[in-house]
Amino acid sequence: MAQALQETGQRASADLYLEIQLFYARQMPLLEARKLEEFLETFTEDGYIEHRPNGWKLVGRKQLLIEMTARRGDPDKPKVEEISARDAREQNIAYYDGLVYRYWFDRIRVQILGDGAYQVNYQAIVTMTDRATGKVSFEPTTTVEDVLVRGADGELQTRSRTVTHDTPNWADKIHNPVEG
Amino acid sequence: MAQALQETGQRASADLYLEIQLFYARQMPLLEARKLEEFLETFTEDGYIEHRPNGWKLVGRKQLLIEMTARRGDPDKPKVEEISARDAREQNIAYYDGLVYRYWFDRIRVQILGDGAYQVNYQAIVTMTDRATGKVSFEPTTTVEDVLVRGADGELQTRSRTVTHDTPNWADKIHNPVEG
Amino acid sequence: MAQALQETGQRASADLYLEIQLFYARQMPLLEARKLEEFLETFTEDGYIEHRPNGWKLVGRKQLLIEMTARRGDPDKPKVEEISARDAREQNIAYYDGLVYRYWFDRIRVQILGDGAYQVNYQAIVTMTDRATGKVSFEPTTTVEDVLVRGADGELQTRSRTVTHDTPNWADKIHNPVEG
Repeated sequence: MAQALQETGQRASADLYLEIQLFYARQMPLLEARKLEEFLETFTEDGYIEHRPNGWKLVGRKQLLIEMTARRGDPDKPKVEEISARDAREQNIAYYDGLVYRYWFDRIRVQILGDGAYQVNYQAIVTMTDRATGKVSFEPTTTVEDVLVRGADGELQTRSRTVTHDTPNWADKIHNPVEG
Repeated sequence: MAQALQETGQRASADLYLEIQLFYARQMPLLEARKLEEFLETFTEDGYIEHRPNGWKLVGRKQLLIEMTARRGDPDKPKVEEISARDAREQNIAYYDGLVYRYWFDRIRVQILGDGAYQVNYQAIVTMTDRATGKVSFEPTTTVEDVLVRGADGELQTRSRTVTHDTPNWADKIHNPVEG
Repeated sequence: MAQALQETGQRASADLYLEIQLFYARQMPLLEARKLEEFLETFTEDGYIEHRPNGWKLVGRKQLLIEMTARRGDPDKPKVEEISARDAREQNIAYYDGLVYRYWFDRIRVQILGDGAYQVNYQAIVTMTDRATGKVSFEPTTTVEDVLVRGADGELQTRSRTVTHDTPNWADKIHNPVEG
Protein backbone atom coordinates (compact mmCIF):
# COMPACT_ATOMS: atom_id res chain seq x y z
CA MET A 1 0.00 0.00 0.00
CA ALA A 2 2.89 2.31 0.81
CA GLN A 3 4.49 1.30 -2.46
CA ALA A 4 3.78 4.39 -4.48
CA LEU A 5 5.37 6.64 -1.89
CA GLN A 6 8.67 4.81 -1.71
CA GLU A 7 11.67 5.33 -3.94
CA THR A 8 14.97 3.48 -4.12
CA GLY A 9 17.35 4.52 -1.38
CA GLN A 10 14.67 6.29 0.66
CA ARG A 11 14.20 5.40 4.28
CA ALA A 12 11.19 3.19 4.86
CA SER A 13 8.20 5.14 6.08
CA ALA A 14 6.48 4.15 9.31
CA ASP A 15 3.64 2.72 7.19
CA LEU A 16 5.93 0.54 5.11
CA TYR A 17 7.91 -0.60 8.14
CA LEU A 18 4.71 -1.62 9.88
CA GLU A 19 3.50 -3.41 6.77
CA ILE A 20 6.71 -5.45 6.74
CA GLN A 21 6.49 -6.19 10.48
CA LEU A 22 2.93 -7.40 10.01
CA PHE A 23 3.96 -9.49 7.02
CA TYR A 24 6.33 -11.44 9.27
CA ALA A 25 3.76 -11.53 12.07
CA ARG A 26 1.42 -13.29 9.64
CA GLN A 27 4.02 -15.40 7.81
CA MET A 28 5.99 -16.97 10.62
CA PRO A 29 3.07 -18.31 12.72
CA LEU A 30 2.03 -20.29 9.63
CA LEU A 31 5.39 -22.09 9.71
CA GLU A 32 5.12 -22.54 13.47
CA ALA A 33 1.65 -24.07 13.02
CA ARG A 34 3.02 -26.34 10.24
CA LYS A 35 0.55 -24.78 7.77
CA LEU A 36 3.19 -25.37 5.13
CA GLU A 37 1.19 -24.69 2.00
CA GLU A 38 -0.14 -21.43 3.42
CA PHE A 39 3.34 -20.53 4.59
CA LEU A 40 4.75 -21.10 1.12
CA GLU A 41 2.05 -18.91 -0.41
CA THR A 42 3.85 -16.06 1.36
CA PHE A 43 6.83 -16.87 -0.89
CA THR A 44 6.99 -16.30 -4.62
CA GLU A 45 6.61 -19.41 -6.78
CA ASP A 46 10.38 -19.44 -7.35
CA GLY A 47 11.27 -18.22 -3.85
CA TYR A 48 14.16 -19.87 -2.08
CA ILE A 49 15.59 -20.42 1.38
CA GLU A 50 19.33 -20.82 1.78
CA HIS A 51 21.21 -21.77 4.93
CA ARG A 52 24.86 -20.66 5.28
CA PRO A 53 27.55 -21.68 5.86
CA ASN A 54 27.84 -25.39 5.19
CA GLY A 55 24.12 -25.70 4.53
CA TRP A 56 21.77 -26.07 1.61
CA LYS A 57 19.52 -24.07 -0.68
CA LEU A 58 15.97 -25.11 -1.47
CA VAL A 59 14.48 -23.41 -4.53
CA GLY A 60 10.81 -22.98 -5.35
CA ARG A 61 7.62 -23.69 -3.47
CA LYS A 62 7.54 -27.29 -4.67
CA GLN A 63 10.99 -28.25 -3.40
CA LEU A 64 10.42 -26.32 -0.19
CA LEU A 65 7.12 -28.09 0.41
CA ILE A 66 8.64 -31.55 -0.08
CA GLU A 67 11.51 -30.80 2.30
CA MET A 68 9.37 -29.08 4.94
CA THR A 69 6.69 -31.76 4.87
CA ALA A 70 9.35 -34.37 5.57
CA ARG A 71 11.16 -32.41 8.23
CA ARG A 72 8.79 -30.13 10.13
CA GLY A 73 7.08 -32.91 12.02
CA ASP A 74 4.18 -32.86 14.42
CA PRO A 75 4.32 -31.33 17.90
CA ASP A 76 1.89 -33.96 19.18
CA LYS A 77 4.13 -36.89 18.23
CA PRO A 78 6.88 -38.03 20.58
CA LYS A 79 10.26 -36.38 20.19
CA VAL A 80 12.65 -38.27 17.97
CA GLU A 81 16.00 -39.38 19.36
CA GLU A 82 18.73 -36.77 19.49
CA ILE A 83 19.73 -35.88 15.95
CA SER A 84 21.34 -33.07 13.97
CA ALA A 85 19.67 -31.17 11.13
CA ARG A 86 22.07 -32.70 8.62
CA ASP A 87 21.51 -36.26 9.81
CA ALA A 88 17.74 -35.67 9.87
CA ARG A 89 17.91 -34.82 6.17
CA GLU A 90 20.12 -37.77 5.31
CA GLN A 91 17.97 -40.22 7.28
CA ASN A 92 14.68 -38.52 6.34
CA ILE A 93 13.59 -37.85 9.91
CA ALA A 94 11.00 -35.27 11.05
CA TYR A 95 13.30 -33.69 13.58
CA TYR A 96 10.75 -31.16 14.86
CA ASP A 97 8.42 -33.90 16.12
CA GLY A 98 7.38 -33.24 19.69
CA LEU A 99 8.50 -29.62 19.59
CA VAL A 100 6.66 -26.31 19.40
CA TYR A 101 9.08 -23.92 17.76
CA ARG A 102 8.75 -20.17 17.57
CA TYR A 103 10.82 -17.55 15.79
CA TRP A 104 11.86 -14.31 17.48
CA PHE A 105 13.10 -11.45 15.30
CA ASP A 106 14.88 -8.25 16.23
CA ARG A 107 16.76 -5.40 14.48
CA ILE A 108 14.55 -5.39 11.39
CA ARG A 109 16.05 -3.02 8.82
CA VAL A 110 14.53 -2.22 5.44
CA GLN A 111 16.23 -1.09 2.26
CA ILE A 112 14.06 0.00 -0.64
CA LEU A 113 15.30 -1.65 -3.84
CA GLY A 114 12.74 -0.07 -6.19
CA ASP A 115 9.92 -1.68 -8.18
CA GLY A 116 8.20 -2.61 -4.92
CA ALA A 117 11.12 -4.77 -3.76
CA TYR A 118 12.73 -4.51 -0.36
CA GLN A 119 15.81 -5.99 1.23
CA VAL A 120 15.08 -6.79 4.86
CA ASN A 121 17.75 -7.74 7.36
CA TYR A 122 17.17 -9.01 10.87
CA GLN A 123 18.47 -11.33 13.53
CA ALA A 124 16.49 -14.38 14.62
CA ILE A 125 16.48 -17.00 17.33
CA VAL A 126 14.28 -20.09 17.49
CA THR A 127 12.85 -21.38 20.74
CA MET A 128 11.83 -25.03 20.90
CA THR A 129 9.38 -25.88 23.65
CA ASP A 130 9.17 -29.58 24.40
CA ARG A 131 5.46 -30.26 23.99
CA ALA A 132 5.44 -32.91 26.73
CA THR A 133 7.64 -31.30 29.38
CA GLY A 134 7.64 -27.58 28.57
CA LYS A 135 11.43 -27.46 28.59
CA VAL A 136 12.73 -24.68 26.34
CA SER A 137 15.84 -25.05 24.20
CA PHE A 138 17.33 -22.78 21.56
CA GLU A 139 18.74 -23.09 18.10
CA PRO A 140 21.93 -21.11 17.52
CA THR A 141 21.29 -17.46 16.70
CA THR A 142 21.20 -16.35 13.07
CA THR A 143 21.17 -13.25 10.92
CA VAL A 144 18.80 -13.23 7.96
CA GLU A 145 18.56 -11.35 4.68
CA ASP A 146 15.25 -11.47 2.83
CA VAL A 147 14.17 -9.93 -0.43
CA LEU A 148 10.46 -9.13 -0.41
CA VAL A 149 8.48 -8.27 -3.52
CA ARG A 150 4.85 -7.46 -4.25
CA GLY A 151 2.56 -10.04 -5.85
CA ALA A 152 -0.14 -9.25 -8.39
CA ASP A 153 -2.50 -8.27 -5.57
CA GLY A 154 0.03 -5.86 -4.08
CA GLU A 155 0.70 -8.07 -1.07
CA LEU A 156 4.26 -8.74 0.06
CA GLN A 157 5.94 -12.06 -0.68
CA THR A 158 9.37 -13.44 0.13
CA ARG A 159 11.48 -13.96 -2.98
CA SER A 160 14.56 -15.09 -1.10
CA ARG A 161 15.68 -15.81 2.43
CA THR A 162 19.34 -16.24 3.27
CA VAL A 163 19.96 -17.43 6.81
CA THR A 164 23.49 -17.12 8.16
CA HIS A 165 24.00 -19.19 11.29
CA ASP A 166 26.25 -17.88 14.04
CA THR A 167 28.15 -21.16 14.18
CA PRO A 168 29.55 -22.88 11.07
CA ASN A 169 28.65 -26.18 12.75
CA TRP A 170 24.94 -25.50 13.22
CA ALA A 171 23.80 -28.33 10.93
CA ASP A 172 25.80 -30.90 12.88
CA LYS A 173 24.68 -29.73 16.31
CA ILE A 174 22.20 -31.92 18.16
CA HIS A 175 18.96 -30.22 17.29
CA ASN A 176 16.69 -31.66 19.99
CA PRO A 177 18.84 -32.15 23.07
CA VAL A 178 17.39 -34.16 25.93
CA GLU A 179 19.21 -31.84 28.30
CA GLY A 180 18.40 -28.13 27.65
CA MET B 1 -5.87 9.06 20.09
CA ALA B 2 -5.99 7.27 16.76
CA GLN B 3 -9.46 6.05 17.61
CA ALA B 4 -11.48 8.31 15.36
CA LEU B 5 -9.53 7.25 12.31
CA GLN B 6 -10.04 3.52 12.73
CA GLU B 7 -12.94 1.46 11.51
CA THR B 8 -13.79 -2.20 11.99
CA GLY B 9 -11.78 -4.44 9.72
CA GLN B 10 -9.32 -1.70 8.75
CA ARG B 11 -5.65 -2.29 9.16
CA ALA B 12 -4.20 -0.61 12.21
CA SER B 13 -2.46 2.64 11.34
CA ALA B 14 1.17 3.14 12.36
CA ASP B 15 -0.10 5.51 15.08
CA LEU B 16 -2.49 2.98 16.56
CA TYR B 17 0.04 0.16 16.34
CA LEU B 18 2.58 2.31 18.20
CA GLU B 19 0.01 3.24 20.81
CA ILE B 20 -0.61 -0.45 21.46
CA GLN B 21 3.09 -1.27 21.58
CA LEU B 22 3.58 1.52 24.10
CA PHE B 23 0.62 0.32 26.12
CA TYR B 24 2.37 -3.02 26.64
CA ALA B 25 5.70 -1.29 27.22
CA ARG B 26 4.06 0.56 30.11
CA GLN B 27 1.84 -2.29 31.35
CA MET B 28 4.20 -5.22 31.58
CA PRO B 29 7.04 -3.54 33.54
CA LEU B 30 4.45 -2.83 36.26
CA LEU B 31 3.88 -6.57 36.61
CA GLU B 32 7.60 -7.23 36.51
CA ALA B 33 8.12 -4.67 39.28
CA ARG B 34 5.29 -6.26 41.30
CA LYS B 35 3.37 -2.98 41.22
CA LEU B 36 0.23 -5.07 41.19
CA GLU B 37 -2.39 -2.42 41.84
CA GLU B 38 -0.95 -0.18 39.16
CA PHE B 39 -0.72 -3.15 36.82
CA LEU B 40 -4.36 -3.99 37.38
CA GLU B 41 -5.38 -0.40 36.66
CA THR B 42 -4.32 -1.19 33.10
CA PHE B 43 -7.14 -3.77 33.08
CA THR B 44 -10.84 -2.99 33.12
CA GLU B 45 -12.59 -3.49 36.46
CA ASP B 46 -14.05 -6.78 35.15
CA GLY B 47 -10.97 -7.72 33.13
CA TYR B 48 -9.80 -11.32 33.24
CA ILE B 49 -6.74 -13.47 32.64
CA GLU B 50 -7.22 -17.05 31.51
CA HIS B 51 -4.56 -19.71 31.15
CA ARG B 52 -5.17 -22.58 28.71
CA PRO B 53 -5.18 -25.53 28.53
CA ASN B 54 -5.59 -27.17 31.91
CA GLY B 55 -5.34 -23.85 33.70
CA TRP B 56 -7.56 -21.34 35.42
CA LYS B 57 -9.38 -18.08 34.81
CA LEU B 58 -9.23 -15.17 37.23
CA VAL B 59 -11.97 -12.58 36.75
CA GLY B 60 -11.94 -8.97 37.87
CA ARG B 61 -9.30 -6.76 39.43
CA LYS B 62 -10.16 -7.93 42.93
CA GLN B 63 -9.67 -11.62 42.29
CA LEU B 64 -6.58 -10.93 40.22
CA LEU B 65 -5.08 -8.82 42.98
CA ILE B 66 -5.64 -11.48 45.63
CA GLU B 67 -4.09 -14.18 43.48
CA MET B 68 -1.15 -12.08 42.29
CA THR B 69 -0.36 -10.74 45.74
CA ALA B 70 -0.13 -14.31 47.00
CA ARG B 71 1.88 -15.64 44.09
CA ARG B 72 4.09 -12.95 42.59
CA GLY B 73 6.55 -12.90 45.45
CA ASP B 74 9.57 -10.75 46.10
CA PRO B 75 12.77 -10.90 44.08
CA ASP B 76 14.80 -10.04 47.18
CA LYS B 77 13.58 -13.04 49.16
CA PRO B 78 15.29 -16.42 48.77
CA LYS B 79 13.97 -18.70 46.05
CA VAL B 80 11.40 -21.18 47.24
CA GLU B 81 12.04 -24.88 46.77
CA GLU B 82 11.31 -26.31 43.35
CA ILE B 83 7.58 -26.18 42.75
CA SER B 84 5.06 -26.12 39.91
CA ALA B 85 2.56 -23.31 39.27
CA ARG B 86 -0.33 -25.60 40.18
CA ASP B 87 1.23 -26.76 43.44
CA ALA B 88 2.14 -23.18 44.31
CA ARG B 89 -1.55 -22.28 44.07
CA GLU B 90 -2.67 -25.29 46.09
CA GLN B 91 -0.07 -24.73 48.79
CA ASN B 92 -0.32 -20.92 48.65
CA ILE B 93 3.34 -20.34 47.84
CA ALA B 94 4.85 -17.20 46.30
CA TYR B 95 6.62 -19.08 43.58
CA TYR B 96 8.28 -16.02 42.01
CA ASP B 97 10.27 -15.28 45.17
CA GLY B 98 13.92 -14.75 44.37
CA LEU B 99 13.28 -14.27 40.66
CA VAL B 100 13.26 -11.26 38.38
CA TYR B 101 10.92 -12.16 35.56
CA ARG B 102 10.52 -10.28 32.29
CA TYR B 103 8.11 -10.75 29.42
CA TRP B 104 9.23 -10.66 25.80
CA PHE B 105 6.61 -10.21 23.09
CA ASP B 106 6.83 -10.70 19.34
CA ARG B 107 4.46 -10.89 16.35
CA ILE B 108 2.02 -8.33 17.67
CA ARG B 109 -1.03 -8.22 15.37
CA VAL B 110 -4.00 -5.90 15.78
CA GLN B 111 -7.58 -6.36 14.63
CA ILE B 112 -9.95 -3.44 14.95
CA LEU B 113 -13.21 -4.61 16.51
CA GLY B 114 -15.01 -1.26 16.42
CA ASP B 115 -16.13 0.98 19.28
CA GLY B 116 -12.50 1.54 20.23
CA ALA B 117 -11.90 -2.16 20.92
CA TYR B 118 -9.00 -4.13 19.50
CA GLN B 119 -8.08 -7.79 19.43
CA VAL B 120 -4.33 -8.13 19.82
CA ASN B 121 -2.47 -11.39 19.26
CA TYR B 122 1.18 -12.03 20.06
CA GLN B 123 3.62 -14.64 21.25
CA ALA B 124 5.38 -14.32 24.59
CA ILE B 125 8.21 -15.86 26.52
CA VAL B 126 9.11 -15.19 30.14
CA THR B 127 12.72 -15.03 31.33
CA MET B 128 13.40 -15.64 34.99
CA THR B 129 16.71 -14.31 36.24
CA ASP B 130 17.77 -15.76 39.56
CA ARG B 131 18.32 -12.64 41.66
CA ALA B 132 21.18 -14.21 43.62
CA THR B 133 23.09 -16.01 40.89
CA GLY B 134 22.01 -14.36 37.64
CA LYS B 135 21.14 -17.71 36.10
CA VAL B 136 18.42 -17.33 33.44
CA SER B 137 15.64 -19.86 32.95
CA PHE B 138 12.54 -19.78 30.76
CA GLU B 139 8.89 -20.51 31.11
CA PRO B 140 7.42 -22.46 28.19
CA THR B 141 6.49 -20.26 25.24
CA THR B 142 2.91 -19.03 24.86
CA THR B 143 0.59 -17.34 22.41
CA VAL B 144 -1.71 -14.66 23.77
CA GLU B 145 -4.98 -13.06 22.69
CA ASP B 146 -5.97 -9.80 24.35
CA VAL B 147 -8.98 -7.61 23.92
CA LEU B 148 -8.15 -3.96 24.57
CA VAL B 149 -10.75 -1.25 25.06
CA ARG B 150 -10.65 2.46 25.82
CA GLY B 151 -11.45 3.76 29.29
CA ALA B 152 -13.33 6.96 30.02
CA ASP B 153 -10.11 8.95 29.54
CA GLY B 154 -9.47 7.38 26.14
CA GLU B 155 -6.54 5.32 27.40
CA LEU B 156 -6.25 1.66 26.49
CA GLN B 157 -7.11 -1.06 29.00
CA THR B 158 -7.03 -4.84 28.84
CA ARG B 159 -10.49 -6.35 29.03
CA SER B 160 -9.33 -9.94 28.56
CA ARG B 161 -6.11 -11.87 28.21
CA THR B 162 -6.15 -15.48 27.09
CA VAL B 163 -2.78 -17.18 27.37
CA THR B 164 -2.33 -20.49 25.52
CA HIS B 165 0.73 -22.36 26.69
CA ASP B 166 2.75 -24.37 24.19
CA THR B 167 2.68 -27.41 26.45
CA PRO B 168 -0.51 -28.77 28.02
CA ASN B 169 1.59 -29.63 31.07
CA TRP B 170 2.86 -26.11 31.76
CA ALA B 171 1.15 -25.82 35.16
CA ASP B 172 2.77 -29.01 36.42
CA LYS B 173 6.27 -28.19 35.21
CA ILE B 174 8.83 -27.20 37.82
CA HIS B 175 8.61 -23.44 37.65
CA ASN B 176 11.87 -22.50 39.36
CA PRO B 177 14.38 -25.20 38.49
CA VAL B 178 17.66 -25.25 40.38
CA GLU B 179 19.34 -26.39 37.18
CA GLY B 180 18.65 -24.05 34.19
CA MET C 1 14.22 14.24 10.74
CA ALA C 2 11.20 14.20 13.01
CA GLN C 3 12.96 16.65 15.29
CA ALA C 4 11.12 19.80 14.40
CA LEU C 5 7.77 18.24 15.10
CA GLN C 6 8.53 17.07 18.61
CA GLU C 7 8.18 19.05 21.79
CA THR C 8 9.10 18.22 25.37
CA GLY C 9 6.58 15.95 27.02
CA GLN C 10 4.85 15.04 23.76
CA ARG C 11 4.42 11.43 22.85
CA ALA C 12 6.88 10.22 20.27
CA SER C 13 5.38 10.14 16.80
CA ALA C 14 5.47 6.93 14.79
CA ASP C 15 8.22 8.50 12.66
CA LEU C 16 10.41 9.35 15.63
CA TYR C 17 9.82 5.97 17.26
CA LEU C 18 10.84 4.22 14.06
CA GLU C 19 13.90 6.42 13.73
CA ILE C 20 14.97 5.36 17.23
CA GLN C 21 14.27 1.68 16.55
CA LEU C 22 16.38 1.90 13.39
CA PHE C 23 19.12 3.69 15.29
CA TYR C 24 19.47 0.67 17.57
CA ALA C 25 19.10 -1.71 14.64
CA ARG C 26 22.14 -0.05 13.11
CA GLN C 27 24.10 0.57 16.32
CA MET C 28 23.99 -2.78 18.06
CA PRO C 29 25.08 -5.00 15.13
CA LEU C 30 28.28 -2.90 15.02
CA LEU C 31 29.05 -3.97 18.58
CA GLU C 32 28.10 -7.56 17.78
CA ALA C 33 30.47 -7.50 14.80
CA ARG C 34 33.22 -5.99 17.00
CA LYS C 35 33.35 -2.93 14.73
CA LEU C 36 34.23 -0.96 17.83
CA GLU C 37 35.29 2.32 16.30
CA GLU C 38 32.16 2.45 14.17
CA PHE C 39 30.08 1.48 17.17
CA LEU C 40 31.56 4.30 19.22
CA GLU C 41 30.83 6.79 16.46
CA THR C 42 27.18 6.20 17.37
CA PHE C 43 28.04 7.68 20.78
CA THR C 44 28.89 11.29 21.47
CA GLU C 45 32.59 12.03 22.03
CA ASP C 46 31.92 12.24 25.78
CA GLY C 47 29.31 9.46 25.82
CA TYR C 48 29.42 6.96 28.62
CA ILE C 49 28.27 3.47 29.54
CA GLU C 50 27.58 2.66 33.17
CA HIS C 51 26.80 -0.75 34.64
CA ARG C 52 24.81 -0.91 37.88
CA PRO C 53 24.85 -2.07 40.59
CA ASN C 54 28.38 -2.97 41.68
CA GLY C 55 29.77 -2.18 38.27
CA TRP C 56 31.76 0.51 36.53
CA LYS C 57 31.37 3.56 34.36
CA LEU C 58 33.45 4.15 31.25
CA VAL C 59 33.43 7.74 30.02
CA GLY C 60 34.22 8.95 26.53
CA ARG C 61 34.93 7.20 23.27
CA LYS C 62 38.63 6.85 24.05
CA GLN C 63 38.18 5.03 27.35
CA LEU C 64 35.37 2.94 25.90
CA LEU C 65 37.52 1.93 22.93
CA ILE C 66 40.43 0.86 25.13
CA GLU C 67 38.18 -1.23 27.36
CA MET C 68 36.16 -2.76 24.54
CA THR C 69 39.22 -3.58 22.46
CA ALA C 70 40.67 -5.48 25.41
CA ARG C 71 37.47 -7.26 26.34
CA ARG C 72 35.26 -7.87 23.32
CA GLY C 73 37.46 -10.60 21.87
CA ASP C 74 37.21 -12.54 18.65
CA PRO C 75 34.50 -15.09 17.92
CA ASP C 76 36.95 -17.13 15.84
CA LYS C 77 39.40 -17.62 18.71
CA PRO C 78 38.87 -20.45 21.20
CA LYS C 79 36.73 -19.68 24.23
CA VAL C 80 38.70 -18.61 27.27
CA GLU C 81 38.37 -20.60 30.48
CA GLU C 82 35.33 -19.87 32.62
CA ILE C 83 35.63 -16.37 34.02
CA SER C 84 33.48 -13.57 35.37
CA ALA C 85 33.22 -10.07 33.88
CA ARG C 86 34.99 -8.59 36.90
CA ASP C 87 37.86 -11.07 36.82
CA ALA C 88 38.20 -10.59 33.06
CA ARG C 89 38.79 -6.89 33.67
CA GLU C 90 41.25 -7.49 36.50
CA GLN C 91 43.20 -10.08 34.55
CA ASN C 92 42.82 -8.28 31.21
CA ILE C 93 41.12 -11.18 29.44
CA ALA C 94 39.01 -10.96 26.26
CA TYR C 95 36.09 -12.81 27.77
CA TYR C 96 33.94 -12.76 24.62
CA ASP C 97 36.48 -14.84 22.67
CA GLY C 98 34.80 -17.74 20.93
CA LEU C 99 31.32 -16.27 21.36
CA VAL C 100 28.88 -14.61 19.00
CA TYR C 101 26.79 -12.35 21.18
CA ARG C 102 23.57 -10.63 20.17
CA TYR C 103 21.40 -8.10 21.99
CA TRP C 104 17.63 -8.41 22.08
CA PHE C 105 15.59 -5.37 23.12
CA ASP C 106 11.94 -5.06 24.10
CA ARG C 107 9.62 -2.47 25.66
CA ILE C 108 11.30 0.52 24.03
CA ARG C 109 9.80 3.71 25.48
CA VAL C 110 10.70 7.23 24.42
CA GLN C 111 10.49 10.45 26.39
CA ILE C 112 11.13 13.71 24.57
CA LEU C 113 13.50 15.87 26.61
CA GLY C 114 13.58 18.84 24.25
CA ASP C 115 16.45 20.22 22.16
CA GLY C 116 16.45 17.02 20.12
CA ALA C 117 17.27 14.86 23.15
CA TYR C 118 15.36 11.72 24.08
CA GLN C 119 15.36 9.43 27.07
CA VAL C 120 14.88 5.88 25.90
CA ASN C 121 14.14 2.99 28.26
CA TYR C 122 14.11 -0.68 27.34
CA GLN C 123 14.87 -4.15 28.58
CA ALA C 124 17.66 -6.21 27.07
CA ILE C 125 18.98 -9.74 27.09
CA VAL C 126 22.21 -10.95 25.52
CA THR C 127 22.49 -14.33 23.82
CA MET C 128 25.93 -15.87 23.50
CA THR C 129 26.23 -18.53 20.82
CA ASP C 130 29.33 -20.69 21.19
CA ARG C 131 30.98 -20.30 17.79
CA ALA C 132 32.32 -23.86 17.82
CA THR C 133 29.35 -25.80 19.20
CA GLY C 134 26.32 -23.56 18.64
CA LYS C 135 25.31 -23.83 22.27
CA VAL C 136 23.34 -20.76 23.39
CA SER C 137 23.74 -19.21 26.84
CA PHE C 138 22.35 -16.00 28.29
CA GLU C 139 23.62 -13.09 30.30
CA PRO C 140 21.30 -12.01 33.12
CA THR C 141 18.49 -9.73 31.94
CA THR C 142 18.88 -5.96 32.25
CA THR C 143 16.93 -2.74 31.99
CA VAL C 144 18.57 0.13 30.19
CA GLU C 145 18.18 3.91 30.15
CA ASP C 146 19.78 5.81 27.29
CA VAL C 147 19.90 9.49 26.49
CA LEU C 148 20.06 10.09 22.76
CA VAL C 149 20.93 13.42 21.19
CA ARG C 150 21.35 14.70 17.65
CA GLY C 151 24.80 15.28 16.19
CA ALA C 152 25.71 18.14 13.86
CA ASP C 153 24.32 16.16 10.93
CA GLY C 154 21.00 15.57 12.67
CA GLU C 155 21.67 11.89 13.23
CA LEU C 156 21.02 10.31 16.61
CA GLN C 157 23.87 9.50 18.98
CA THR C 158 23.97 7.93 22.42
CA ARG C 159 25.10 10.38 25.08
CA SER C 160 24.67 7.98 27.96
CA ARG C 161 23.72 4.37 28.58
CA THR C 162 22.92 3.15 32.07
CA VAL C 163 22.52 -0.60 32.30
CA THR C 164 20.88 -2.00 35.45
CA HIS C 165 21.44 -5.72 35.80
CA ASP C 166 18.69 -7.86 37.27
CA THR C 167 21.13 -9.47 39.69
CA PRO C 168 23.50 -7.45 41.89
CA ASN C 169 26.04 -10.22 41.35
CA TRP C 170 26.12 -10.08 37.57
CA ALA C 171 29.78 -9.06 37.37
CA ASP C 172 30.88 -12.03 39.46
CA LYS C 173 28.81 -14.61 37.60
CA ILE C 174 30.65 -16.98 35.30
CA HIS C 175 30.24 -15.24 31.98
CA ASN C 176 31.03 -18.09 29.60
CA PRO C 177 29.82 -21.28 31.26
CA VAL C 178 30.89 -24.58 29.74
CA GLU C 179 27.48 -25.97 30.69
CA GLY C 180 24.48 -23.93 29.44
